[in-house]
Amino acid sequence: MKRCKMRVGMVGGGGGNSFFGAPHRRAILMDNSAELTAGALRSDPAAALASAEELFFERGYGHWGDLVAGEAARPEGDRIDYLTIVTPNDAHAGPAEAAAGAGIGVLCEKPLTTTLDEARRLHAAVQAADVPFVVAHTYTGYPMVMLARQLVRDGLIGEVRKVEAWYPQGWLATRREAEGSKQASWRTDPAQAGASGCGGDIGSHAYEFIRFVASLRAVRVSARMKSVVPGRALDDDFGVFAELDNGAIGVVSASQITIGAENDNGFRVIGTAGTLRWRHTHFAQLEHYVVDRPVAIYRAGVDYGYIPGSIRPYLRMPQGHPEGFHEALANLHRTIEWTIRGRRGEEAPKPFDHPGIVDGVAVMAFLEASVASAREAGAWVDVPFNG
Amino acid sequence: MKRCKMRVGMVGGGGGNSFFGAPHRRAILMDNSAELTAGALRSDPAAALASAEELFFERGYGHWGDLVAGEAARPEGDRIDYLTIVTPNDAHAGPAEAAAGAGIGVLCEKPLTTTLDEARRLHAAVQAADVPFVVAHTYTGYPMVMLARQLVRDGLIGEVRKVEAWYPQGWLATRREAEGSKQASWRTDPAQAGASGCGGDIGSHAYEFIRFVASLRAVRVSARMKSVVPGRALDDDFGVFAELDNGAIGVVSASQITIGAENDNGFRVIGTAGTLRWRHTHFAQLEHYVVDRPVAIYRAGVDYGYIPGSIRPYLRMPQGHPEGFHEALANLHRTIEWTIRGRRGEEAPKPFDHPGIVDGVAVMAFLEASVASAREAGAWVDVPFNG
Amino acid sequence: MKRCKMRVGMVGGGGGNSFFGAPHRRAILMDNSAELTAGALRSDPAAALASAEELFFERGYGHWGDLVAGEAARPEGDRIDYLTIVTPNDAHAGPAEAAAGAGIGVLCEKPLTTTLDEARRLHAAVQAADVPFVVAHTYTGYPMVMLARQLVRDGLIGEVRKVEAWYPQGWLATRREAEGSKQASWRTDPAQAGASGCGGDIGSHAYEFIRFVASLRAVRVSARMKSVVPGRALDDDFGVFAELDNGAIGVVSASQITIGAENDNGFRVIGTAGTLRWRHTHFAQLEHYVVDRPVAIYRAGVDYGYIPGSIRPYLRMPQGHPEGFHEALANLHRTIEWTIRGRRGEEAPKPFDHPGIVDGVAVMAFLEASVASAREAGAWVDVPFNG
Amino acid sequence: MKRCKMRVGMVGGGGGNSFFGAPHRRAILMDNSAELTAGALRSDPAAALASAEELFFERGYGHWGDLVAGEAARPEGDRIDYLTIVTPNDAHAGPAEAAAGAGIGVLCEKPLTTTLDEARRLHAAVQAADVPFVVAHTYTGYPMVMLARQLVRDGLIGEVRKVEAWYPQGWLATRREAEGSKQASWRTDPAQAGASGCGGDIGSHAYEFIRFVASLRAVRVSARMKSVVPGRALDDDFGVFAELDNGAIGVVSASQITIGAENDNGFRVIGTAGTLRWRHTHFAQLEHYVVDRPVAIYRAGVDYGYIPGSIRPYLRMPQGHPEGFHEALANLHRTIEWTIRGRRGEEAPKPFDHPGIVDGVAVMAFLEASVASAREAGAWVDVPFNG
Repeated sequence: MKRCKMRVGMVGGGGGNSFFGAPHRRAILMDNSAELTAGALRSDPAAALASAEELFFERGYGHWGDLVAGEAARPEGDRIDYLTIVTPNDAHAGPAEAAAGAGIGVLCEKPLTTTLDEARRLHAAVQAADVPFVVAHTYTGYPMVMLARQLVRDGLIGEVRKVEAWYPQGWLATRREAEGSKQASWRTDPAQAGASGCGGDIGSHAYEFIRFVASLRAVRVSARMKSVVPGRALDDDFGVFAELDNGAIGVVSASQITIGAENDNGFRVIGTAGTLRWRHTHFAQLEHYVVDRPVAIYRAGVDYGYIPGSIRPYLRMPQGHPEGFHEALANLHRTIEWTIRGRRGEEAPKPFDHPGIVDGVAVMAFLEASVASAREAGAWVDVPFNG
Repeated sequence: MKRCKMRVGMVGGGGGNSFFGAPHRRAILMDNSAELTAGALRSDPAAALASAEELFFERGYGHWGDLVAGEAARPEGDRIDYLTIVTPNDAHAGPAEAAAGAGIGVLCEKPLTTTLDEARRLHAAVQAADVPFVVAHTYTGYPMVMLARQLVRDGLIGEVRKVEAWYPQGWLATRREAEGSKQASWRTDPAQAGASGCGGDIGSHAYEFIRFVASLRAVRVSARMKSVVPGRALDDDFGVFAELDNGAIGVVSASQITIGAENDNGFRVIGTAGTLRWRHTHFAQLEHYVVDRPVAIYRAGVDYGYIPGSIRPYLRMPQGHPEGFHEALANLHRTIEWTIRGRRGEEAPKPFDHPGIVDGVAVMAFLEASVASAREAGAWVDVPFNG
Repeated sequence: MKRCKMRVGMVGGGGGNSFFGAPHRRAILMDNSAELTAGALRSDPAAALASAEELFFERGYGHWGDLVAGEAARPEGDRIDYLTIVTPNDAHAGPAEAAAGAGIGVLCEKPLTTTLDEARRLHAAVQAADVPFVVAHTYTGYPMVMLARQLVRDGLIGEVRKVEAWYPQGWLATRREAEGSKQASWRTDPAQAGASGCGGDIGSHAYEFIRFVASLRAVRVSARMKSVVPGRALDDDFGVFAELDNGAIGVVSASQITIGAENDNGFRVIGTAGTLRWRHTHFAQLEHYVVDRPVAIYRAGVDYGYIPGSIRPYLRMPQGHPEGFHEALANLHRTIEWTIRGRRGEEAPKPFDHPGIVDGVAVMAFLEASVASAREAGAWVDVPFNG
Repeated sequence: MKRCKMRVGMVGGGGGNSFFGAPHRRAILMDNSAELTAGALRSDPAAALASAEELFFERGYGHWGDLVAGEAARPEGDRIDYLTIVTPNDAHAGPAEAAAGAGIGVLCEKPLTTTLDEARRLHAAVQAADVPFVVAHTYTGYPMVMLARQLVRDGLIGEVRKVEAWYPQGWLATRREAEGSKQASWRTDPAQAGASGCGGDIGSHAYEFIRFVASLRAVRVSARMKSVVPGRALDDDFGVFAELDNGAIGVVSASQITIGAENDNGFRVIGTAGTLRWRHTHFAQLEHYVVDRPVAIYRAGVDYGYIPGSIRPYLRMPQGHPEGFHEALANLHRTIEWTIRGRRGEEAPKPFDHPGIVDGVAVMAFLEASVASAREAGAWVDVPFNG
């Protein structure tokens, strides 16, 4: 019997200024295994319907509530398989909880919510419904980041002693929220973004590297946050020292005022037996350092024999054909797709451990503790959830 | 009125071992502006039909002849808008000429054909039919390569004095054609690949850099070709000195035995007033050198103000989100799509000057002259066509 | 009249295991403008004399006290012009103060002393004697670091908002002090190294980047220090957040357990109008980032027109001839040499503002505040001296 | 008994515009094992004497003939141990032959002479005198280049199939010889430089990489030479295909019109089992590629266990302290010094196989064959000497 394409829904992402709707659609479509089934793409209902038609969604809805209700009412095999949520942070929990309640899987943008409480409630709903849930920490979709996780877990670098994760950007070095940039506006608005701007938007990615790659968790944090650009309501520079659960040192740095930095995120995991370093600017390679040996550079390519079976299905092309941001994002969609197919008994590769609901909540807990610490001049604050 | 998706046909690319079918499908689908309409994906008719169904083509055909005939018979607005040809070199001309004859545009893999004569015949057919035609020199789809072309034409580096273009690979360092590799087999078989292996497969890309980026043409060549791996029927190492039409020096190097080189192609265009260098390993940047000034590094990103209007529509993402091989390939599909839409009076960005039928023929002429030169110990041979 | 070579003295640096004696001797000799006049190179008097003879010092002494007394007793024009001190930290102040007292200039290894009090006393002595004094923050001798200082002072990047400085190493990832490494032993011994191991040894270099390049000073610090390797007496990992005197953010990171990091120090100075980045691994270039412009890469070379007159005399070779660590160190010797010659009315280039006694004391103040902060779980502590 | 410093003589290199005198003096002095004993530094006798005094040579001479005669007349233990020749190419053979005739070793700048005949005569003289002789192919003094030679000889990459060596520069992109540049003037003057400008000046370095690193020799060449800059008397762009003595492919490229290239020389040696690549821009590392394995990056540092005993004595500093151009040059001086000391029975490390008189002659033979080939439109010409 012929395999069906995944039927994917989308909330948000329809506006002309939308940043992440388009890459998610590319990620959904590029592998020829999924289709755009249902969309509630803008907040204005009429605009939402027009947008869905223009963007070739099979079914348009004026509001995410209608979408979830409408899809839930359709017979199995006709309704959407999962919902992609690409709204600002304050509009994640509503559709996510509704979808979960209707038994529909969710791939949600990060950070999960605007508050830890909201995240905990969503967590409970997702647990109760037992639906697949992926948080779009896109950088964990790069095969060399996945390889780093695998190698750390395999013990290649021994016991982890320190993890540094960073994410400098420069695009908010001026007050773009006052110049009409929609992307800047909601990201610097506490009501839509949450209690941390820079920390929530990109510090979250950096912290997730610690969790994902090193399989460690921050138990206590000492944070420094600052609004460098005059008149900005939220932090645009974010630095955290963390104590990790095995006693290792964690360092998270993020900045939005580093002129010239694009998305220069990365990490270094330092163990007793070696170090792994990855940088987004060199995304197709992973550097492995060992005492008194040449540096070893792993490179991406489905044909490299050293790519483990857990990662190989996520690579599309042989060596030398760079798969970038869209493919990384598409890999997260693969994870939810393969999870869904696997649950149904369809043949599908084993999905990788990409960030899920627990990670989403844990990142919110990290942010909440960081905000509290920064308010107290960097006092050490316990991270209230680690999953 | 709602804009329709492009209806795209495909010949070849359906086998499990196929290398380029999958990336072309990703390129076609990722921008949500085109669909897989008709496919004749394998040489065995039954397998072709099964493959088309499995890969979600709307209509499957057992043979490319049927596909062209079948599509041509459908009413306008229902038949395919263009045909993507991803077969081995010896199977390009047939479907390309048929499609052109039926008034259907073509996006064809490179090199255009196996001989210059065949290429000339195809040229005549395409000219007569006046259909859009793009040759898949994928690397010309990278925005920083496009920018290089633009900057050279704008006079940024003065008069061009020398162009170096290179393409080393290592994957044929052993006799993989004897180990069951389909990709290796046809590429090293003169009947399927043409008179040059390495030159045709990747030297062609390097030479096209000279044409595309520097807007120059080889008028005479002195070539050295070698089959390094014992038992190989075609060259796996290829080096050419060229005299370009403005008197500048051209150097084309390609190799398939350079262990460790992935697709490390690139170019350097040296002018009286500066130099531009691009390397595929650093695809998102373009280096500009001027006497006694800091090096200037252009970086890709739709939000950079220095990206000219001719290139901006080809960029999908703001700075720091690497768009790699698939997006470059998708950019060639955009060029044929936008050409077609433009001819129809639909709104579409102005297509960039990506390689077309003339380039395809010119590359074959370059290869033929190179083969002749190499046979005569590097004697200088005129390039018989430059378009 | 013929110019004389500088007569240079040296204390320490004579043992077979000595790390920094040899590079200082190369730095002194390489430019053919100075000679090794007097040495008290080892703690054991007999060994010191033997070492001085073996290393071609004109005069050997058994102890630094004898050296200073002996040289001071010689007529001007015969005694040493300055003294180079390359002993462990606890043996800097003695010879430095004695030399200053005798009117002899000093080029001293860093950190200046083991305690701030000791540094203050030395400061007073040097001020009273008014002798030239250079602290060997060798990395400030790299021309591209000097250029960064100049460009910041020229206002190229506007007002500085943040300075990051880092220095990861990996050589102390195991307990080498227990394996007979002399270098490791004294650096991890509080009596010889001072209250901070990693911070004193290399965090000091990183902090000096903030002072030297950004011309800013830490007024308050919040520090985290850790002895990662079991059994180690001093910190081998060091992280500091600082408030700089213009309100900018300072971040200092240093580590000795980062396996694979060699001397991968560097800095990023982020201003309102741009960013400068330098990395020791790419020492011959300086990166300049501006909003919406190509990155500009300055490169070292005496023939580059953009090298300002203040720096040009420190470059020896035209572009493309890498001048590395020894030349950087030699540049600090040039600074003290040119200062001395200038004071004497000899023709000499204008010396650059390399770190002097005030910087030496300020670095000790930074370290003392950092140690105090780290002991109080990162509480913010005022830096007691900034010069 | 105390070891004596090497007594070094120098011919040329004394002018204010001299390019290579100063780095050779630094190379001679930096290791504290040699002194500037005798100099005939300029062509004008009075200027030569003044220059020798100004530059602290123990003995000045007005002419190299006097120098050789004068030194030869001194008792052993007082006269120079070897002569460094840093004059333009046409003034190498005279002092070199005289020194050899007097039993004095020679370290001579490259290319050895202006003609092959002259080189052969010098070869005969050196052989007859049996004196140590080093040709200053400075890049072979970089430890990572030495390591490459060693690893190839150890069989790490199997049988060599292809060697690429390159050396692009940009400093002669304008007609600087007409603007008063002394460096440009003699290098573009056939009388002083020989029959090839670019080939002789830097193509010679590239070809020597093939000999030194791959231990292979060109038996036949097909060359292309061009004077790109109008009015220039010699080639400023140089490209050679070579057949190497084991049948491997050789490619030598050099250019002086590549604006922005500094001294971006390097090589890639491609074998049946792997590839080694070195680039001067990344001089402290050596890249090793093997099929289906991570890339291995060797880094320089006397403390790395993988540095073989044959190379370790040439490294001065532990990892992370870049030793650049001067140290590489100093390593060639070490080779002649250690050769001399070894012959005398003094303790000294075993000298490495740096280029000697045979290499000097072989490079001249390569150049002569290349010039002949280029004159015949690239016809294959036998290389008349390979030593």
